[in-house]
Amino acid sequence: MSAYRIGIVGLGKIAQDQHVPVIAADPDFDLVAVASQRAMRAPGVSRAFTDWRDLLADPDVDAVAICTPPGVRHQIASAALDAGKHVLLEKPPAATLSELVDLERRAAEAGRVVFTTWHSQYNRGVEEARLRLAGQRLRALQVTWKEDVRRWHPGQAWIWEAGGFGVFDPGINALSIVTRIAPEPIFVRSATLETPENAQAPIAATLELAAGRAGERLGAVFDWRQTGPQTWDIDIETEAGAKLALRHGGSRLEVDGTVVVDEPAHEYEGIYRRFAELLRDGSSQVDAAPLRLVADAFMVARRTATERFDP
Amino acid sequence: MSAYRIGIVGLGKIAQDQHVPVIAADPDFDLVAVASQRAMRAPGVSRAFTDWRDLLADPDVDAVAICTPPGVRHQIASAALDAGKHVLLEKPPAATLSELVDLERRAAEAGRVVFTTWHSQYNRGVEEARLRLAGQRLRALQVTWKEDVRRWHPGQAWIWEAGGFGVFDPGINALSIVTRIAPEPIFVRSATLETPENAQAPIAATLELAAGRAGERLGAVFDWRQTGPQTWDIDIETEAGAKLALRHGGSRLEVDGTVVVDEPAHEYEGIYRRFAELLRDGSSQVDAAPLRLVADAFMVARRTATERFDP
Repeated sequence: MSAYRIGIVGLGKIAQDQHVPVIAADPDFDLVAVASQRAMRAPGVSRAFTDWRDLLADPDVDAVAICTPPGVRHQIASAALDAGKHVLLEKPPAATLSELVDLERRAAEAGRVVFTTWHSQYNRGVEEARLRLAGQRLRALQVTWKEDVRRWHPGQAWIWEAGGFGVFDPGINALSIVTRIAPEPIFVRSATLETPENAQAPIAATLELAAGRAGERLGAVFDWRQTGPQTWDIDIETEAGAKLALRHGGSRLEVDGTVVVDEPAHEYEGIYRRFAELLRDGSSQVDAAPLRLVADAFMVARRTATERFDP
Repeated sequence: MSAYRIGIVGLGKIAQDQHVPVIAADPDFDLVAVASQRAMRAPGVSRAFTDWRDLLADPDVDAVAICTPPGVRHQIASAALDAGKHVLLEKPPAATLSELVDLERRAAEAGRVVFTTWHSQYNRGVEEARLRLAGQRLRALQVTWKEDVRRWHPGQAWIWEAGGFGVFDPGINALSIVTRIAPEPIFVRSATLETPENAQAPIAATLELAAGRAGERLGAVFDWRQTGPQTWDIDIETEAGAKLALRHGGSRLEVDGTVVVDEPAHEYEGIYRRFAELLRDGSSQVDAAPLRLVADAFMVARRTATERFDP
């Protein structure tokens, strides 16, 4: 079978670091076109547009990977579905939940595939944790997600604006792991957001979570002010007494103190493997749960102002 | 056919003003039990519990109407479904979207009916507006929802706390009308929330809305500081040039300046008529769109602090 012909819309850091090389190495896909407002190019790709509408008009493109900032994803994805293209959405898949629900409906009506990629779900430690937690009940779960925003988001002003997600930009990765591995639905009970006085988006957040029953201790702490070593950990205890620890964003899994998975992240390889499966099956995969928890957190949150932060 | 035997959980203002008398007048329902933490009673109802768990254990109750504050609705509704009861949820149906999605799934698994009631949708003017807008496109839509919080929520401290919705408590009524009558999906593009410095929930909100295309002018203004005459208006213009105006929360509809519907609100009569239909059919009705727009607004909002407000 011939490869799927794919175009990338938005050639920012994540597209260049991950999508371009991973597609190049994947026999299921040919990267045939890119669209970049700033007229960036990708190596070996002859068709480079500055307007994504021109890419969508190209009949030799079967599918598009949308790697722009989230605010414009719904507009581009809607137009792509209208143009008969399949759609892969970088995370977070849309600026709002209503947009995401709309894309799911439109894809079904158009008979096209839409795929919400949550890259952190594709670590092997995450899948192993999911299998081990299946059928169990949670006694405790603690997310600790602390990183240095200046290191990971240099010069990105939009993350500090209203609608820019703030520390939930990395935090949603943790939530996408939690919703993937948890054997029960997860809810936000309460939240505290700390927002610098010169920003609109939070720099830190503390979430009290629940799995729908009384007595568990579930929570998350997100912080963007951590210099030095970076922390992306999830610690879990089941009612049966097993202790699982996901480290380094899910690439390492320890069970009762013993390392059972420890391998480099191949998140985007897993994403494109899954996208090829969905395209072969003609089925969409829309996982709204991580974005829903973020919206819930914003809705129930107590807010505090914190000191000015210069990015 | 004999009437459905219903119990009310939570005997606050809305239960006493609306649910109790409307059920009493509806031949499809018998009000057989109430549960009230404060040991309130309803006229003619012999079984009065202080703990809702005792009401749910009563085998002579087929269905429950949950009229508590939203924070505890998911817990009570989950237990009701586990006990084999059908569930009617006052608005807003849950504290978070994740809770609402969970209730929909649980009801399907339990083979029971869950019904999210958005009372403002049951005005005849709203239904008439929906029919007239079907197949049209919107050029403009403006919601103006301004009321006096001291008059409508005397002594309710929880509305000012985190998770208490603030001015979205009435605002969600407007949004439930908009999502009901709009011929296209509605999105929140941006929002500004004004929160008193001594509160966590907004006292006023301005929303820029969209129907998924460029060029329309859609918006909403919610304000809880309006003394004197109260305003619950929605003004609409279609691309074909028709002008619709819903006044008084949807009980009056004007089309191109002519009053076409003007009758007293019979919102709760409509709710219980619909609930009886759903029970006969064995189908649930879960409309998450209004709560989703609220969560979206909180997620994308710009926030400003405003002067202290003493409720």
